[in-house]
Amino acid sequence: MAEQATTDTGRSAKAPTKAALVDAGLHLMLENGYHHTGIQDVLQAAGVPKGSFYYYFPSKEAFGLEVIAYFAAAYVARLEQCLGETTLSPLTRLRRHLDETLARFERRGCRGGCLIGNLSQELADQSALFGTQLEAVLSDWRERYARLFREAQAVGELRTDLDPQQVAEFYLNSFEGAVLRAKVSKSPAPLRLFMTMMFDGVLHGSTAGR
Amino acid sequence: MAEQATTDTGRSAKAPTKAALVDAGLHLMLENGYHHTGIQDVLQAAGVPKGSFYYYFPSKEAFGLEVIAYFAAAYVARLEQCLGETTLSPLTRLRRHLDETLARFERRGCRGGCLIGNLSQELADQSALFGTQLEAVLSDWRERYARLFREAQAVGELRTDLDPQQVAEFYLNSFEGAVLRAKVSKSPAPLRLFMTMMFDGVLHGSTAGR
Repeated sequence: MAEQATTDTGRSAKAPTKAALVDAGLHLMLENGYHHTGIQDVLQAAGVPKGSFYYYFPSKEAFGLEVIAYFAAAYVARLEQCLGETTLSPLTRLRRHLDETLARFERRGCRGGCLIGNLSQELADQSALFGTQLEAVLSDWRERYARLFREAQAVGELRTDLDPQQVAEFYLNSFEGAVLRAKVSKSPAPLRLFMTMMFDGVLHGSTAGR
Repeated sequence: MAEQATTDTGRSAKAPTKAALVDAGLHLMLENGYHHTGIQDVLQAAGVPKGSFYYYFPSKEAFGLEVIAYFAAAYVARLEQCLGETTLSPLTRLRRHLDETLARFERRGCRGGCLIGNLSQELADQSALFGTQLEAVLSDWRERYARLFREAQAVGELRTDLDPQQVAEFYLNSFEGAVLRAKVSKSPAPLRLFMTMMFDGVLHGSTAGR
């Protein structure tokens, strides 16, 4: 979810080597996937001398797990910043978060998509280790959305006959599907449609006439 | 969409070599992706002598495009068989198609997922050729669903304030997201949730009280 963790932060030349490697790995894996990202490419992109890699990471797998954790943490920081704006109603905060995510995705030319979705697709059947970590990230995100939807119910913004956890899971999975389609069609339209259908059809819309 | 085109058909030892290669390629690419499927693996899985590959396909890319076309055609054949059952209402046909898809996915141990979603994730940013073909498949599927939703509106089964094409796109993208999640969590639960939320919340449910 969310196209990428660090698009706008840039990379500091003074960043510690390990952080530079992880950041370079994130950028490369977002576009090329895990298998298609070579350690040599990462070293080159990070401007780090050959041989440094195995000083910091016992294996490419360990490196991949760190990249996932880094992306997930950056995403959660952005999410919680938006959802923490408690002067706004819960669903308004969520909409603002989506607006920001969409703007970031467009700035990147609708490339990359979501690292968690990408690697889930690529690695879920191949590695139990990656599968477990990716599932943990998705579950964590779902819980954060579920909390928001419970809050929305408490203030009468979301119909109470829906299970907040189920709504959160549907929301998250559908968003991942929309990002995937937006990446293929190189257009933000599928994400805009996701917002419209989700807010008007599932979250807000269904309360009409009840 | 739909986990795989040929799970239940098996492979005939008498199948022509080209078809055997495409079928083997489909099985391997579903689990391992495009880059991680070697031509040697395909030849071995198909039980075809080395050297045959380039007799049939000018490149691995050309082979990949044929595998996509094969998967898409098999999916459409299954879809249209279900949707053509006009003794049933449009949404009942759709639900039956989903039930069948879910059963196939479970029989495969929730592995593989949808080749079109998988390769979209893997190749959309890397190859305009693959991107264009994958987008064409998704657009074709969307049109088929849109036709069904128009029919559902005509018989009063779907609210008429929804744009059938938008519903179809949202449906398709959300389904791809649900398949992705089901593949990571190795459980059909995300697909069951997709059915519930889509039918009760978006398609049927929203007519309540209108």
